[in-house]
Amino acid sequence: MNTVELIRKKREAEKLSYEEIDFLVSGYTKGKIPDYQFSAFLMAAFINGLDKQETSALTKAMLYSGKVLSLSEIPGLKVDKHSTGGVGDKTSLILAPIAAAAGVKVPMISGRGLGHTGGTLDKLEAVPGFRTNLNLREYKSVLKKCGAVLIGQTKDIAPADKLIYALRDVTATVESIPLITASIMSKKLAEGIDALVLDVKTGSGAFMKKFSDAKELAGSLINTAVSFNKKVIAFITDMSQPLGNYIGNWLEVYESIKVLQGEKVEDLLELTLNLSGAMIFLGNKAGSLKEGIEISEEMIKSGKAFDKFLQIAKLQGSNVSFLKKPDKYPKPKYSEVITAERNGYLFEVNNYEIGIASVELGAGRFTKTDKIDPKAGIIFYPKIGDKLNKGDKIAEIFTDKKGKLEEVKKRITHAVKLSAAKPEKPKLIKAVKMVV
Amino acid sequence: MNTVELIRKKREAEKLSYEEIDFLVSGYTKGKIPDYQFSAFLMAAFINGLDKQETSALTKAMLYSGKVLSLSEIPGLKVDKHSTGGVGDKTSLILAPIAAAAGVKVPMISGRGLGHTGGTLDKLEAVPGFRTNLNLREYKSVLKKCGAVLIGQTKDIAPADKLIYALRDVTATVESIPLITASIMSKKLAEGIDALVLDVKTGSGAFMKKFSDAKELAGSLINTAVSFNKKVIAFITDMSQPLGNYIGNWLEVYESIKVLQGEKVEDLLELTLNLSGAMIFLGNKAGSLKEGIEISEEMIKSGKAFDKFLQIAKLQGSNVSFLKKPDKYPKPKYSEVITAERNGYLFEVNNYEIGIASVELGAGRFTKTDKIDPKAGIIFYPKIGDKLNKGDKIAEIFTDKKGKLEEVKKRITHAVKLSAAKPEKPKLIKAVKMVV
Repeated sequence: MNTVELIRKKREAEKLSYEEIDFLVSGYTKGKIPDYQFSAFLMAAFINGLDKQETSALTKAMLYSGKVLSLSEIPGLKVDKHSTGGVGDKTSLILAPIAAAAGVKVPMISGRGLGHTGGTLDKLEAVPGFRTNLNLREYKSVLKKCGAVLIGQTKDIAPADKLIYALRDVTATVESIPLITASIMSKKLAEGIDALVLDVKTGSGAFMKKFSDAKELAGSLINTAVSFNKKVIAFITDMSQPLGNYIGNWLEVYESIKVLQGEKVEDLLELTLNLSGAMIFLGNKAGSLKEGIEISEEMIKSGKAFDKFLQIAKLQGSNVSFLKKPDKYPKPKYSEVITAERNGYLFEVNNYEIGIASVELGAGRFTKTDKIDPKAGIIFYPKIGDKLNKGDKIAEIFTDKKGKLEEVKKRITHAVKLSAAKPEKPKLIKAVKMVV
Repeated sequence: MNTVELIRKKREAEKLSYEEIDFLVSGYTKGKIPDYQFSAFLMAAFINGLDKQETSALTKAMLYSGKVLSLSEIPGLKVDKHSTGGVGDKTSLILAPIAAAAGVKVPMISGRGLGHTGGTLDKLEAVPGFRTNLNLREYKSVLKKCGAVLIGQTKDIAPADKLIYALRDVTATVESIPLITASIMSKKLAEGIDALVLDVKTGSGAFMKKFSDAKELAGSLINTAVSFNKKVIAFITDMSQPLGNYIGNWLEVYESIKVLQGEKVEDLLELTLNLSGAMIFLGNKAGSLKEGIEISEEMIKSGKAFDKFLQIAKLQGSNVSFLKKPDKYPKPKYSEVITAERNGYLFEVNNYEIGIASVELGAGRFTKTDKIDPKAGIIFYPKIGDKLNKGDKIAEIFTDKKGKLEEVKKRITHAVKLSAAKPEKPKLIKAVKMVV
């Protein structure tokens, strides 16, 4: 096979076989195909698209660029969840212990914050002592002992994805449904899962701002999961405002603890119960999604979910004292309150801006080398449709960077639109699709 | 400006401004933009296209990546010809002395053979002593003294083109009309010309096999020339069989001498007279193309064109004894005759294969480091529509590589189709377009 000829084929919108795609991906991963050829291929694939089979082939080629874990020595079905990312999206921290408490095995490999969105790894690392860099022996051992494990991507897992993602980032080839699909699925399939729950976000705080794009991505992810014989339930959910009220790494751990302890944070709880319910259903511990949700509620009520959370944290090296008494966590140096300047209903949130504001406070990274401040972040109080009176709290911001306070206050103020008439509340779960 | 953002724009088929294109081209030429970003841009430009203004902007950016010669110190209009390349296309060697003898200034910067096609530089270098690597001072001096000069591209001329062409070659982005246009025109405009004659080839021995593609390229070249205020006459001409009968470097010099001395090589003479006639017309030494052709004929008949050829060769360092007595040129070690296996009319020639056959004999390069044998090549006798009897000569091949003889004989035999009925002869000059 000849690299230029394969690039030419995709340039002419011809279909590539698995062997051809694998030639490109493994050649690139091994350094035999240079960046400039692979980027030309990526651009041709971006513009001319990859069909179902090609997307599946790309996923497979990226998956087998590294180690594919076998968890067959651990009994029971292994189910994971993947979210396309958002602002205040901490469901992983809550649903992993719920599903594990219900008897499902949850082998979760997560990522870091990207752009304006947070990442599960960064949140876990806000817990003192929590080790996300377990080796594969430790990973299996924790999973076996408590039914869940949460780590970061190792070098062995889908190395092609890491290389390709870095190249896409600098060649304007990021926002492609087939390329996104292969990136997500190659990492998830490497975990050794039997089934997957997908949370595809849409709205101003999501990567897929438009519902139609989110639907297309969900369809592509489902097709690819099915082509690997994995059961899958995909949700398309609202990201037009923060999920829950807490944004920032420790702040999200804090809110997760509250929910695990029974606090009713409406939207966050509803979504988490649906996702964990789907995991329990896919893990054959419930006969339906509805039953899975009921079991999830029971796991919270009984305290089993929170106990499981402590157990996971302990097994992964954490001193759980802060989890038991979260109010003892170190406080940020500065905080400010942002209030409503007039009466009105919360009409619209530019949720991307809220995400960027939290990054500016120290909760995320603008460049790879930026250090995260786990204490930094935002509490965002109202939900779209809520009535606000002049002077009511909209948000509270926390940071060690005094110089950022004014800028972030302005950013958040500009990101919030009030209206005279009461707007409809956005629907949280916009669509569900199951292939079980 | 931001490279990724500009790539994204072209990816979305948005229009780029001159400033944006120049940012990319000059950034790439200076090494500030890496190969992998420029190749992503090239692929996006290939698939989504560049319009008239963008093509002209790309040409300008590539042109000003290097030195743009001024020939204003030399009186008279400067006119050059560019051919898109073919098999046996030696018109430059004949028309440059004709036009110069008629008083037009011909500052010609030529290229080497590419793929299956020959290059003027390689042909000139078959003449012992002929220096194609004059510096710019010598270049101007020869042009001033005799009205014509033929050299190769210097490092100063459109360096962006050299870099971009090398990248296109390995990223499947060669066959793009806007990219080809900018590559051709940036080099030609750097010569300091006032007007340009274009010979866009079509047929099996051309890069543009289809007439429609040749027409599109001719249109794009004309638009770009006009946007730089250059007069232009473009011909679309047949390359479905070799031009003239001689293919190979010295063999083509030999045939050129014969034509300059008055021999009537029908197709070669007709095309050359048209091209030189167009140059003489554009150079204001004739009132029409027709008159330019008549003057060209006169230049041959009077011996002035051949004398000019000798004068140019002498000024460029050649001992002209071989030009005066071409039969004294060293002979190749091996030759073979290929004859018709049955009676019939010459119906079709796979002219690409004839070109490749000549490269195999040593007349061209498969890789950059291959050395050319100036003696190697082919004499191809019949023209499409000619009657052949069994045993009639089709071709004679010349080489120092004994091992190639059988393979090349087979290749040429397969490239030739005979028919029982007499086919029509292809029209040599298929279209002419003038902007004067």
